[in-house]
Amino acid sequence: MNSPAPMAKDELMRKVVALCKTRGFVFQSSEIYGGLKSAYDYGPLGVELKRNVMAEWWRDMVTCRENVVGIDASIMMHPDVWRASGHAAGFADPLVDCKVSKERFRADKAPRPAPGDELPLTCPDKGVAKTYAEIIEKSFGVALERDGNVLRGLKAVGPGEFGFFSKGAAAPEKTWPWRGYVSPLIGSPFLSEERQFNLMFRTSLGAVDPMQDVAEATARLTAQPDLAAAVKAEFGKDAETGALGKALATGERAKILRAVAEHVTGGNMVYLRPETAQAMFVQFKNVQSSTSQKIPFGIAQMGKSFRNEVTVEHFIFRSCEFEQMEMEFFCEPGTQGEWMEFWKKARMAWWTRYAQRPGDFRFRAHEKSELAHYADQCFDVEYAYPWGWGELEGIASRTDHDLHAHQEASGQSLEYIDAEKDDPKTGKKPWRYLPYVIEPAAGATRAVLCFLLDAYTEEERRTAAGETELRTVLKLHPRLAPIKCAVLPLVKKDGMPEKARELISAMLAAGIHAKYDEKNSIGKRYAKHDEIGTPWCVTVDGQTLVDGTVTLRDRDTTEQSRVNVAEVVALIRGKLDA
Amino acid sequence: MNSPAPMAKDELMRKVVALCKTRGFVFQSSEIYGGLKSAYDYGPLGVELKRNVMAEWWRDMVTCRENVVGIDASIMMHPDVWRASGHAAGFADPLVDCKVSKERFRADKAPRPAPGDELPLTCPDKGVAKTYAEIIEKSFGVALERDGNVLRGLKAVGPGEFGFFSKGAAAPEKTWPWRGYVSPLIGSPFLSEERQFNLMFRTSLGAVDPMQDVAEATARLTAQPDLAAAVKAEFGKDAETGALGKALATGERAKILRAVAEHVTGGNMVYLRPETAQAMFVQFKNVQSSTSQKIPFGIAQMGKSFRNEVTVEHFIFRSCEFEQMEMEFFCEPGTQGEWMEFWKKARMAWWTRYAQRPGDFRFRAHEKSELAHYADQCFDVEYAYPWGWGELEGIASRTDHDLHAHQEASGQSLEYIDAEKDDPKTGKKPWRYLPYVIEPAAGATRAVLCFLLDAYTEEERRTAAGETELRTVLKLHPRLAPIKCAVLPLVKKDGMPEKARELISAMLAAGIHAKYDEKNSIGKRYAKHDEIGTPWCVTVDGQTLVDGTVTLRDRDTTEQSRVNVAEVVALIRGKLDA
Repeated sequence: MNSPAPMAKDELMRKVVALCKTRGFVFQSSEIYGGLKSAYDYGPLGVELKRNVMAEWWRDMVTCRENVVGIDASIMMHPDVWRASGHAAGFADPLVDCKVSKERFRADKAPRPAPGDELPLTCPDKGVAKTYAEIIEKSFGVALERDGNVLRGLKAVGPGEFGFFSKGAAAPEKTWPWRGYVSPLIGSPFLSEERQFNLMFRTSLGAVDPMQDVAEATARLTAQPDLAAAVKAEFGKDAETGALGKALATGERAKILRAVAEHVTGGNMVYLRPETAQAMFVQFKNVQSSTSQKIPFGIAQMGKSFRNEVTVEHFIFRSCEFEQMEMEFFCEPGTQGEWMEFWKKARMAWWTRYAQRPGDFRFRAHEKSELAHYADQCFDVEYAYPWGWGELEGIASRTDHDLHAHQEASGQSLEYIDAEKDDPKTGKKPWRYLPYVIEPAAGATRAVLCFLLDAYTEEERRTAAGETELRTVLKLHPRLAPIKCAVLPLVKKDGMPEKARELISAMLAAGIHAKYDEKNSIGKRYAKHDEIGTPWCVTVDGQTLVDGTVTLRDRDTTEQSRVNVAEVVALIRGKLDA
Repeated sequence: MNSPAPMAKDELMRKVVALCKTRGFVFQSSEIYGGLKSAYDYGPLGVELKRNVMAEWWRDMVTCRENVVGIDASIMMHPDVWRASGHAAGFADPLVDCKVSKERFRADKAPRPAPGDELPLTCPDKGVAKTYAEIIEKSFGVALERDGNVLRGLKAVGPGEFGFFSKGAAAPEKTWPWRGYVSPLIGSPFLSEERQFNLMFRTSLGAVDPMQDVAEATARLTAQPDLAAAVKAEFGKDAETGALGKALATGERAKILRAVAEHVTGGNMVYLRPETAQAMFVQFKNVQSSTSQKIPFGIAQMGKSFRNEVTVEHFIFRSCEFEQMEMEFFCEPGTQGEWMEFWKKARMAWWTRYAQRPGDFRFRAHEKSELAHYADQCFDVEYAYPWGWGELEGIASRTDHDLHAHQEASGQSLEYIDAEKDDPKTGKKPWRYLPYVIEPAAGATRAVLCFLLDAYTEEERRTAAGETELRTVLKLHPRLAPIKCAVLPLVKKDGMPEKARELISAMLAAGIHAKYDEKNSIGKRYAKHDEIGTPWCVTVDGQTLVDGTVTLRDRDTTEQSRVNVAEVVALIRGKLDA
């Protein structure tokens, strides 16, 4: 077998996405209703693959380690958790609207042409170009030149200004202030103000309809002639300070009503967690005292997180609802360097253990400028996605930042007491301290995507008739494969189905996820199981009934051998445990 | 060993809740911040127990069945899903506020005293009684008699009226209209109007702050002298019909502003799923075509669901965030009766397989009046909780109601095509039809609680010194137990820890979740593992190093036997697989 010419990278992505849909790995959420932006459903094979990936992580990180325990916390947490963690304030992106195309985008990710560059507006087609030219003429008073679907005449004058240049003119006819970037889709510099946007999803807990409460308060307050006076009368002292006070000071009606809405609904507001990590800090004491774990030890969690991403992209790579596998490893201050090395090694070993091409995984050290103020150091595990290197996991040395923040905010001591060690300050036992933390935080959804991309293979092979044929095979690691073994009766008669089902039962009893399959020719069944990554096919044929042997076919080599039926279960179990 | 006198039921509940906290099964969410109403975190043992319960369900319902496949759909789904399913409209409870205590409660679950009954208001204490008496005197003009913490003088006059009776008077001094129920906490008949409340959590998807959009629209509209005219001018045709039109017709300011808020934010609104089931209907076609499953077959899913419950109660029994295990079994119309029998039997066998007291599980058939209009029949699997019989699982015959609703709403055919059967109407092949559905829908969170309650046992036993001692033991089924085997070196020296760790490695390799434990005396370690439900303890002692045998202790009998170390792994593996 030969590999055909290497696939173009976007072709690989396209093929994997298509396979996901036709074979039942991943579907778009609510597809019959036109789909929901950036939400995906895992089909019959996808759910098994995802469960296997996450089970491997849990086994490696929790079950097999004496000093790591698991938790499974609620997705909704007290809003104070996110205030203390900084997510409520800082977990925000500056957003901007293009005044021409109405596109909304993240300012910090927008293209930044250099001063002096032309700023062509590239529209989807000629018709749109015409419409946009009209909008610009009407709103900004300049007639851009239309060149097919491109509008010309704008140029960055300097870092803070752009202008309109009549054809051939050296000096601009008109200029506007500019923030140095353009909209990603059409390249427009006509932009709205930046607006903060919190990436956390918020909802309201408790037996109230928050919109109703807001409507009632707003109706009451706006029915009075002076809104500010009405707000002051209704909220008293609360209106003097905080968000309400600030909004009143601006005198702007929309800001005042926004602050009123917040005030009325704030008490019931909860966020969906944007990461699983904070629960490990918040429950540090409960976990430590119920398990009597001694430092160093870790708390691990897997589960859903939610981020209201502005840009969702690359299939399941960046979506609003996703799954994480995170661990907080609590250690003595001063030992974080050695534990960082330990976990880097452990985590890279985990990723590459399941990979066809371990060279597609690498570390990227964060630059000093990328590091959060409290972080010692941080490394990303990156994968060579079809669109370039991208993040799979972050391993961060977070010092005692998180425990400190929650201790401050909650007023509860989160200190660890080491009765056997001297406090370095006093020279006396016990040593009370806030542990330092190393956090390996991996994306489970991304792991599914990366292992699918890594496994997808097309091979040319020569058929019995001497023709060249393309074989698609998903070379998933056997531990990740959705189905470990297909058991196939050669034909649907002569007792073969019964024998095959007997074998299935024996495999299930041994914990091997085996599936019976009798539809189509044996060749088609092999091809299907190659495509869905089943590492082994066992065929029950005429000879089985005579001498008790079956055919065992290997997915990757396509080689077949005859094995005694009594031995095949132990043989596959052994390969899986290897 | 003898069982002590049976525990009072509320004592059992109290003890299980306490054990959950101290041993790390279940903690209150965000406890250091005062906790979040009705959200719970599973600690190191709880996460393993929950994973085991759910893995057993998945194994029984998906892995071991040829005709059931799994999915894992997103928690956020398209809002049209919930419109079609009826949840957006019907998933609502009538809510009422007590005008005295401000308690908010569900009208349909409130106590309903009979006409002629006295209506005593039972306050938490004397001080509160005084305050409430003052509120009632001020608001309703009657002075109730104070009898400690109870206020007297009210009586249900008839089904539609209650009144205030001066002491000894036969006729009421004053009456009020009454809806026939009182507030659950203090028994007050002074109530607000009923108000519909949707149990689904809503949030907003997309790069917008919905509150900001509402504030801006409201500021703009209310700045104009005539709100209705401003709304009509801004929303044009949209203001003539639908919710906006209806609100304008009422002329009520709060209703108009509520409708405006809905109109402005509606497009981005999404719900957190209140059940996992709908995804199986919405993805029916994708799953069927990617797997080529033939009717009858099932689609199963486990995962989180969210309901904004007014009444949260009994620890993890009813909480706002919970986990479900649901399966939709699609079958030919007319065969639903036999499949109902099949799944009733299969599900009851599953529940009782893991139980100490199978008699604590029963079926309850739904009365005709309880059934949804589309449902054939429905059975609850109930458990004898400390507070009485309560639901664990519902097994419903749902006809083609759900597929029909989604087919109508989406405009996509969800029919199944059976090429081999004649259509009963035309007498010709193929037969196209909407399959009927049997739905066994179990609570995973409730399963965890029920198995904990079922397992919790206190036993008296005689110590070596002849004294009577109480032993607490969690008699969890070995497959559910968080830790299957504790491996204990008798002392922390003489090579025993090393030998114990070797044994752990062999167990982990055989898929047995084993834990090393060297802290405290051997007696204390046995007691701890009894309390957390570890079925077996293996002790490495002096003799192990001499003759290669270890002690194997059984949790339930406390009997110990010496076993060859080379055999102990296979022995435990065998017990787990039995």
